Amino acid sequence: MVVRAAVAGASGYAGGEALRLLLAHPEVEIGTLTGNSNAGQKLGALQPHLWPLADRVLEETTAKTLAGHDVVFLALPHGQSAAVAEQLGPDVLVVDMGADFRLKNAGDWERFYGSPHAGTWPYGLPELPGGRAALEGSKRIAVPGCYPTAVSLALFPAYAAGLVENQAIVVAASGTSGAGKAPKPNLLGSEVMGSMSPYGVGGGHRHTPEMIQNLSAAAGEPVTVSFTPTLAPMPRGILATCSAQARPGVTAETVRAAYEKALADEPFVHLLPEGQWPATASVQGSNAVHIQVAYDEAVDRVIAISAIDNLTKGTAGGAVQSMNIALGLPEELGLSTIGVAP
Amino acid sequence: MVVRAAVAGASGYAGGEALRLLLAHPEVEIGTLTGNSNAGQKLGALQPHLWPLADRVLEETTAKTLAGHDVVFLALPHGQSAAVAEQLGPDVLVVDMGADFRLKNAGDWERFYGSPHAGTWPYGLPELPGGRAALEGSKRIAVPGCYPTAVSLALFPAYAAGLVENQAIVVAASGTSGAGKAPKPNLLGSEVMGSMSPYGVGGGHRHTPEMIQNLSAAAGEPVTVSFTPTLAPMPRGILATCSAQARPGVTAETVRAAYEKALADEPFVHLLPEGQWPATASVQGSNAVHIQVAYDEAVDRVIAISAIDNLTKGTAGGAVQSMNIALGLPEELGLSTIGVAP
Amino acid sequence: MVVRAAVAGASGYAGGEALRLLLAHPEVEIGTLTGNSNAGQKLGALQPHLWPLADRVLEETTAKTLAGHDVVFLALPHGQSAAVAEQLGPDVLVVDMGADFRLKNAGDWERFYGSPHAGTWPYGLPELPGGRAALEGSKRIAVPGCYPTAVSLALFPAYAAGLVENQAIVVAASGTSGAGKAPKPNLLGSEVMGSMSPYGVGGGHRHTPEMIQNLSAAAGEPVTVSFTPTLAPMPRGILATCSAQARPGVTAETVRAAYEKALADEPFVHLLPEGQWPATASVQGSNAVHIQVAYDEAVDRVIAISAIDNLTKGTAGGAVQSMNIALGLPEELGLSTIGVAP
Amino acid sequence: MVVRAAVAGASGYAGGEALRLLLAHPEVEIGTLTGNSNAGQKLGALQPHLWPLADRVLEETTAKTLAGHDVVFLALPHGQSAAVAEQLGPDVLVVDMGADFRLKNAGDWERFYGSPHAGTWPYGLPELPGGRAALEGSKRIAVPGCYPTAVSLALFPAYAAGLVENQAIVVAASGTSGAGKAPKPNLLGSEVMGSMSPYGVGGGHRHTPEMIQNLSAAAGEPVTVSFTPTLAPMPRGILATCSAQARPGVTAETVRAAYEKALADEPFVHLLPEGQWPATASVQGSNAVHIQVAYDEAVDRVIAISAIDNLTKGTAGGAVQSMNIALGLPEELGLSTIGVAP
Repeated sequence: MVVRAAVAGASGYAGGEALRLLLAHPEVEIGTLTGNSNAGQKLGALQPHLWPLADRVLEETTAKTLAGHDVVFLALPHGQSAAVAEQLGPDVLVVDMGADFRLKNAGDWERFYGSPHAGTWPYGLPELPGGRAALEGSKRIAVPGCYPTAVSLALFPAYAAGLVENQAIVVAASGTSGAGKAPKPNLLGSEVMGSMSPYGVGGGHRHTPEMIQNLSAAAGEPVTVSFTPTLAPMPRGILATCSAQARPGVTAETVRAAYEKALADEPFVHLLPEGQWPATASVQGSNAVHIQVAYDEAVDRVIAISAIDNLTKGTAGGAVQSMNIALGLPEELGLSTIGVAP
Repeated sequence: MVVRAAVAGASGYAGGEALRLLLAHPEVEIGTLTGNSNAGQKLGALQPHLWPLADRVLEETTAKTLAGHDVVFLALPHGQSAAVAEQLGPDVLVVDMGADFRLKNAGDWERFYGSPHAGTWPYGLPELPGGRAALEGSKRIAVPGCYPTAVSLALFPAYAAGLVENQAIVVAASGTSGAGKAPKPNLLGSEVMGSMSPYGVGGGHRHTPEMIQNLSAAAGEPVTVSFTPTLAPMPRGILATCSAQARPGVTAETVRAAYEKALADEPFVHLLPEGQWPATASVQGSNAVHIQVAYDEAVDRVIAISAIDNLTKGTAGGAVQSMNIALGLPEELGLSTIGVAP
Repeated sequence: MVVRAAVAGASGYAGGEALRLLLAHPEVEIGTLTGNSNAGQKLGALQPHLWPLADRVLEETTAKTLAGHDVVFLALPHGQSAAVAEQLGPDVLVVDMGADFRLKNAGDWERFYGSPHAGTWPYGLPELPGGRAALEGSKRIAVPGCYPTAVSLALFPAYAAGLVENQAIVVAASGTSGAGKAPKPNLLGSEVMGSMSPYGVGGGHRHTPEMIQNLSAAAGEPVTVSFTPTLAPMPRGILATCSAQARPGVTAETVRAAYEKALADEPFVHLLPEGQWPATASVQGSNAVHIQVAYDEAVDRVIAISAIDNLTKGTAGGAVQSMNIALGLPEELGLSTIGVAP
Repeated sequence: MVVRAAVAGASGYAGGEALRLLLAHPEVEIGTLTGNSNAGQKLGALQPHLWPLADRVLEETTAKTLAGHDVVFLALPHGQSAAVAEQLGPDVLVVDMGADFRLKNAGDWERFYGSPHAGTWPYGLPELPGGRAALEGSKRIAVPGCYPTAVSLALFPAYAAGLVENQAIVVAASGTSGAGKAPKPNLLGSEVMGSMSPYGVGGGHRHTPEMIQNLSAAAGEPVTVSFTPTLAPMPRGILATCSAQARPGVTAETVRAAYEKALADEPFVHLLPEGQWPATASVQGSNAVHIQVAYDEAVDRVIAISAIDNLTKGTAGGAVQSMNIALGLPEELGLSTIGVAP
């Protein structure tokens, strides 16, 4: 089977990471690359790490340039995916790495994104209950946000097992690539190196409703999330520190058992041995998720911490994993669980 | 007034930072420098940034070498301060930058530090209610831990004003200098650069009882703290993200008003304009504390975030500030509120 | 004596650093702050580390807003200083932190900067032979470039003493603040963290003719410079590795002696003890220059390495030092030789 | 073909990188892992990024534990490889990632390493003239040092084509992993972040004679090298800035042509398009070498700059590439030319 794949938005971080992974995928052949503001330029000037594609020229993002592929990965600004997807037709697998089709609740979408809701596509987080079934054979995939990936995987076992109360409190640190490649003063190296800073505090981050959607589904009842993202002085990685109040009767043992059960067969989620905590460096460049969980008796809370690479499992790796499932390929094909460390 | 100051433990990060600040203090003359394992070496080989002291030779930490000073700063491993302080006599101002005399509850000390409790000294966080009075004229000062400094300043206004419920949830990121200068594999540059990782998760960190002590005092009733520290890829700085459930009737306005009132006259604590959040780079090398607070209506929580330099306000700056008060000098003498950024 | 100082271009890195230093200067009172594209904004939103000036509002850069000061610091884009300086009149001390008045040779200026030469002002590097005399009483100062500061101080003793042949080879690493605060994709934190890269290779960097000018003056004959700058993953600092072929008869001892003699009385230049090499962290935020030199017998070359903070000694610190000399103040006033490390 | 491979010294950076690459090699099966001081521990506690091997237990480095493999990779401290190799017998392919067998000149070895010379093995830099032939069928491989890899590849085309004079001047910046995992104060994250510093200045670095050996061989006559290594604040990567005086008649065109010819068919060496300079991030985690070269007419020098990942092409990637050649496998098997960026 040869899967011919196009990437729209190939000059940004999500598109570049998709290409990095697709180049290593044994069944994928890379077709059209597009990038509107950079159309006409060689990819080598924009993504010098993607040597095998250095001489490829970026095209405009149009129905015509994207025609003739089995899969089209969209790494476009929010709000642009619907129009492109429509033109591609129902038989092409469209994998949207943007936010447009993640949320089920139109009101949430409008409140957080300020534009009309485009719809909801099957959600590309196979590890969630029912996640794989939703993706099998699908021709449309909404790739989760990077923070919701890290947070949902850290907490869904606790909610699914009924171990914790409904309010989750999350403080997460992200590498700067999560903020994209469009230059802004606060993202300059001079500003971020040596500095930690929060943003979108107080419920303002757009990924909040997506976390609520996932955890509520796992819990079978409404869950609220207090989410504070912080920008960390590193290019990649998310460390999500998540906690929730334990329900009566919860012990360290029941917590461990629930996580072991929920994550046992997951090819990309590694519940670390007891006492070992995750570090983002350990998953750098890989599709792995490292998780540890503890029950803190003094405060009666379950604390779960996950580490992912925001660009890999948090974006393009999750996209390729979901593509594999949708196409009936082995889920792990072309993806690694080995981080580039140190 | 000339204050003759000695620093015991001058080769480490806390001792070095004390010297950096004391060199800029107009009333201080630097006397003996000690450093047991490095005794006999020139300071210039160990702390090359302290050029004016480059030719000073480190001595052993003994009653004799430390005699004849008005102030002695102790930057010693935990458990060693009591014996040294005893030998210095009651008329010398002893400023302990270690943990030995911070905790009031002997049981807490023993549980977290595993050794007999040495006692309790006036606590060097003048911004807390009653904090200055406790230091005036004192001959002994227990300098707070770096995390408790950041967390207590972020949350005491909320607890003192009765705005929040008793459980505080804190996730803090610290620069690596907080872990000291003794080389360990996990502190290597190769390990920490590009990586975020938690440690002491689940209530295990020794600074937890100190936070509880401070916030309980501010609240006038027991407060519990869920504390998760993380190691961030930067040399200095703490960003503490703190939250607690709001009590009935709390609004964004009452929260802001309480913080403005509590922090208005503080020379080193800067409540940022609404909407602006702190960054550790902005306080680097300074004694400033940048704080912002918000009320998140969706989750009914007060979220307060503070940024400090762990070595300055979090250790040696707090020590000098407290020394100034104890000696009757202007509190701000020799200390800056201007960070070294970018 | 109260010196009233204005800073034009206060929102950028050079302007911000000037303000950081001027705030600590005992004889300076800070007047007007300007910043064209940010006029009308509070400084606190742009330079949050400069807390004491947080409520100052930026004005337009005009003759009117800058009138009434004893000193005006210009941190403007290249080519804009001449017009401003003219309007300020001959009695105001104008300190230009841009490049406009550094080069003596109009042809060099035109070739490297592509615009008409505005003239030459006294050069603000007091440590060069004759450097102080040129500044005393002057009303115009051209502050050197950051690289020429580091390179000229590392090599002028060798050239002045006739120890080396005329071609100097320099490879220097700079922190990213040297590239300014205007956002560009290649300066994003995501791009620079974890990466070293050269730029302006092959003689193209605009600081090259300035180095040639300084070293030729020291040598008393034409010196050529092969200069390769590299961008390092740090916000501040320059490490300049400089070498030149030794002349016959040179030994380790003659080299050391020449450097000791040339640098002995310099308040800001620290020739390190033999065997100790400079590190940029040791001079961070200070006006200090750390230098070491060696004679490598196997290749018959003198190797001199200097570390400076590009924003302090390399820009705003050198500016304040030169201002002190021009105004007849003690040269070291308001400036530190102590780095912020670690 | 299944190649059974053991790694001696699996807990360090070189051994860990070898395992990371071998895990992705389609013909390799990983056998014994040893690590003397960590024998008995699980690899997951020491190298958490190598998830598939997390439960493997480290053994002692002995002839017995290493028996029964087709290939043994040695990542041992200098001086220990000879004894181990002897015990393994002549039919096992021994790939030494240490220095022991790199130098041909026993005097050089003794002068720089201070111990008796163990001998010389075929040198694992296939890109050098005659490099592949020396490795084909060999049962012993001396993997080059990381700096000599970067420098030799940058300069051999110029020397082989007779374009430059004999003295090469090299200033290289290395990530901290090049200094290994043994904890030392100067390698702490607190020390290296935000700092550039040189070491081994003046010809003292042990990699100097290896560069001389390679470049002299390419030139067909003795070449001397002035080499200054610097430590950069990043975990991985080497940027080598190399130059030499041009011989009469050299032009930009002849230089470009020589590099194009020398590097045209190299699967891992990428001569960048004119005007584009290498960055270490672009080769992170890959076996790629990015090179650019220029002729600077003003100083009559050829300047060649290379970027490699010190642990991949500079150590373990070069080792696997050489193993592939020695075993008759396709040279690129299991190795990538795609960097992990940003």
